[in-house]
Amino acid sequence: MKGQKLYGEYKTKMQKIADLQFASALMQWDQEIYLPPKGSDIRGSQIATLSELSHVMFTGRDMRKLLNELSKSKDLRADEKRNAELSFRDLSRKTKLPASFVRELTETSNRCFHSWIKARKENDFSVFRPALKKMIGLKRKEASLIGFEKHPYDALLDEYDHGMTVGTLDRMFKKLIPALSILLDKVLQQQKGDDRILKQHYPEKKQWELGIELLKRIGFDFEAGRQDLSEHPFTVHLNSKDVRLTTRIDEKDLANMTWSCLHEGGHGLYEQGLNAEQYGLPLGEACSLSIHESQSRFWENCVGRSLSFWKWNMPMLKQIFPRQMQGVSANDFFRVINRVSPSLIRTEADELTYHFHVLIRYEIEKKLIQGEMETGDIPDYWNQLYEKHLSVKVPDDRQGCLQDVHWSHGSFGYFPTYSLGSLYAAQFYLEMKKAKPAFDKMIESGNLQHIKTWLQENIYRHGRRFSSEQLCKKACGKGLDPKFLISYLTRKYITHKS
Amino acid sequence: MKGQKLYGEYKTKMQKIADLQFASALMQWDQEIYLPPKGSDIRGSQIATLSELSHVMFTGRDMRKLLNELSKSKDLRADEKRNAELSFRDLSRKTKLPASFVRELTETSNRCFHSWIKARKENDFSVFRPALKKMIGLKRKEASLIGFEKHPYDALLDEYDHGMTVGTLDRMFKKLIPALSILLDKVLQQQKGDDRILKQHYPEKKQWELGIELLKRIGFDFEAGRQDLSEHPFTVHLNSKDVRLTTRIDEKDLANMTWSCLHEGGHGLYEQGLNAEQYGLPLGEACSLSIHESQSRFWENCVGRSLSFWKWNMPMLKQIFPRQMQGVSANDFFRVINRVSPSLIRTEADELTYHFHVLIRYEIEKKLIQGEMETGDIPDYWNQLYEKHLSVKVPDDRQGCLQDVHWSHGSFGYFPTYSLGSLYAAQFYLEMKKAKPAFDKMIESGNLQHIKTWLQENIYRHGRRFSSEQLCKKACGKGLDPKFLISYLTRKYITHKS
Repeated sequence: MKGQKLYGEYKTKMQKIADLQFASALMQWDQEIYLPPKGSDIRGSQIATLSELSHVMFTGRDMRKLLNELSKSKDLRADEKRNAELSFRDLSRKTKLPASFVRELTETSNRCFHSWIKARKENDFSVFRPALKKMIGLKRKEASLIGFEKHPYDALLDEYDHGMTVGTLDRMFKKLIPALSILLDKVLQQQKGDDRILKQHYPEKKQWELGIELLKRIGFDFEAGRQDLSEHPFTVHLNSKDVRLTTRIDEKDLANMTWSCLHEGGHGLYEQGLNAEQYGLPLGEACSLSIHESQSRFWENCVGRSLSFWKWNMPMLKQIFPRQMQGVSANDFFRVINRVSPSLIRTEADELTYHFHVLIRYEIEKKLIQGEMETGDIPDYWNQLYEKHLSVKVPDDRQGCLQDVHWSHGSFGYFPTYSLGSLYAAQFYLEMKKAKPAFDKMIESGNLQHIKTWLQENIYRHGRRFSSEQLCKKACGKGLDPKFLISYLTRKYITHKS
Repeated sequence: MKGQKLYGEYKTKMQKIADLQFASALMQWDQEIYLPPKGSDIRGSQIATLSELSHVMFTGRDMRKLLNELSKSKDLRADEKRNAELSFRDLSRKTKLPASFVRELTETSNRCFHSWIKARKENDFSVFRPALKKMIGLKRKEASLIGFEKHPYDALLDEYDHGMTVGTLDRMFKKLIPALSILLDKVLQQQKGDDRILKQHYPEKKQWELGIELLKRIGFDFEAGRQDLSEHPFTVHLNSKDVRLTTRIDEKDLANMTWSCLHEGGHGLYEQGLNAEQYGLPLGEACSLSIHESQSRFWENCVGRSLSFWKWNMPMLKQIFPRQMQGVSANDFFRVINRVSPSLIRTEADELTYHFHVLIRYEIEKKLIQGEMETGDIPDYWNQLYEKHLSVKVPDDRQGCLQDVHWSHGSFGYFPTYSLGSLYAAQFYLEMKKAKPAFDKMIESGNLQHIKTWLQENIYRHGRRFSSEQLCKKACGKGLDPKFLISYLTRKYITHKS
């Protein structure tokens, strides 16, 4: 019974820490949507205070003592034991960062974000450079505080996907990239037509309506979540009953809103599917960022760019955009939305070239964190890599190295999870299809129950119980392997089957 | 120099506490505007955690020690000394409430709020009764924990207006109410016409536009604030550079939005006018709720229902509502918006009958907190008092004792500040007019500089330096006296001058 009492104390403490973290999440959400401009300075320090307090509460002596005692306790249930173990691991990581360092990181991140906004506005990387340099310095310090065996970047990767290393990623990209290069050449030779259908005038209000309808159709619960507009789409969860998506709308491009909406919707479904009973505890959290990204990429691409999905949704799309969609069949639409085209902007990239964008960021981040490259060298190196891998010329910083928000937040080690997520998504998708031969037919008829059940069973309910690799093995009988993505993309782009 | 070091520590701590409190304020703001329905349970406990933590940080041993040492320090500037004194007073009050009690109060308030919402929906006080009974029990306990000399209600009044007592309020109402009764009879005999002009169809979008324009015209800074829609208008500040108003729109009634907007705008101007340098410290806070209310009532009524204000704004109003305002002069409008009519709903009451609404709540609250009345007796007693003072029959709870949100928040002792605010507002207004003979002419020409300067000089800049009574004496050479309100109302309603 002593173990149960200790566990109760641990749970209460963890939930209070979560309350602080989600208050901070709301402040960040608000900052990107509703904050009046003059409020941004104090908001930064408000958020920093919350981060610092939750850090202090988690890493304090009380919690350490509790977790130590829990680790010896014999009367915990399996779930409880696992929560305590995971918290212990988190604590070991976080204890390495002094509270003052955490506060500095949060405050720098706020300043860095605003300087990134300004730099984008002025289309000039040099405006961003000083703040970014400071941030990179802090992330290098973080890596050395956390510690690593082979590469300092490993210490940062670990935060987003426990156990991930440069070694694993190098091997993965070495297998993936050459295969994608060959595939890319083939596709570019065969591909016909253009994407003019998507570039007509699509009024904002109608696009908003489409986005909401798509989210409802994939099962996003608007009683336990909402969607707003922001400059950069993101998902934030304040608990599994309050999950917030944002999207953006470009009236001259239907694609921008549509697949960003499905992408964030995938994140949102994962958060809504987590166990609400485990609020504030590891088993109530997502497995890893890679698995989170697998969920967004799964809905965005595997489902959201499939033929069966648009056979189902074409009538609805035609109802909202009768003029724009006149004479367009589901097959036409499927071809158009799956055009491959090497381009400048990651978030608008097709599923094939997307991984070159990620690779480029990965190569740059490794060098920056290793200390092999100066902040000021980023634009030139960025532009060289785009020329080398995608044969595109970067005309300016805004369309080049200033396009992503991540570095301003200090999220080094985050980008690789996008590729990992796509690999997992394809692997899960093929596994589901194998298990359910009527998979496509069911989607066509608007029935997604088979998908929801699979995801609930294999992903959502586990929270952080398993690592990404373990989760994948349990779900598919096999660890992560790039061959599934390659086979999925070949089928889609060469044989034009969903 | 030691004092300066201590003061620095105190300031840093106070600002962190403020960060927590404003995070909680944002959560409450969000709760009334954007929170998805299923998120409300956890939101309650998230808010409770923030309240508890800020309470613990403020009442902890460190802060007590700091404030004790500061109270002995000789090298503080006057402002610093005053901040430390006021924090010491706050601490003495707050120390009397255990953290667990604060948490219980916050959580009860959240449940109570939702049960009030439900009761209003079902138009049935009995749905609200159990939660309200719990809340009243807690407030009675709070009064006994805080302590009082004569009446337990004094302990609660003190939180909203330091030093206010049942004795003072009883004397004030004894002077005010009979004079208002006489005035009311006179006005009702003389008054002609109706308010049909205000009850036409006023489309939501156009009303929104009018509200924003009025706020801009009275000087609300939208770079340091915003407005949203909510069911019950309110103002929340996250710091003086982030002040948020809400309003509601009834398409069949122009008055509802217009004067609620000016009311909240008055609160907002006060918050934006506070000293940003004093963030988190008493001198950066509003004097009292009574003075806060004086600011909202001043802009809503003294200015916002004056003839000169509408002489200035009539062209703009006609531009937004050309059809509805056709043939209406500023004089006509002034008469219509100042019609007196005993009615059921406090927030829609005219300036004269308003104080009967407040008196009724005050009488009920006194009895509840004294323990002289049961929660279940509220509706009957409420209805009796409305019949007695305003000769109106209350048809149902929604238009009766369920109309205000305050009790669900546990804000007992708050209502009297509405009357006090009106008294102060009238007294300030007459003082300003005396000092500046061109007062009305300046408003007519759209120049509000004289008002802004007076308020900045006499109210905003002082923060909590003085008590309400002291502030009033300094500004007007005389403490609060109901005669000013009576003279102001007589002038407006009998001689029809602004």
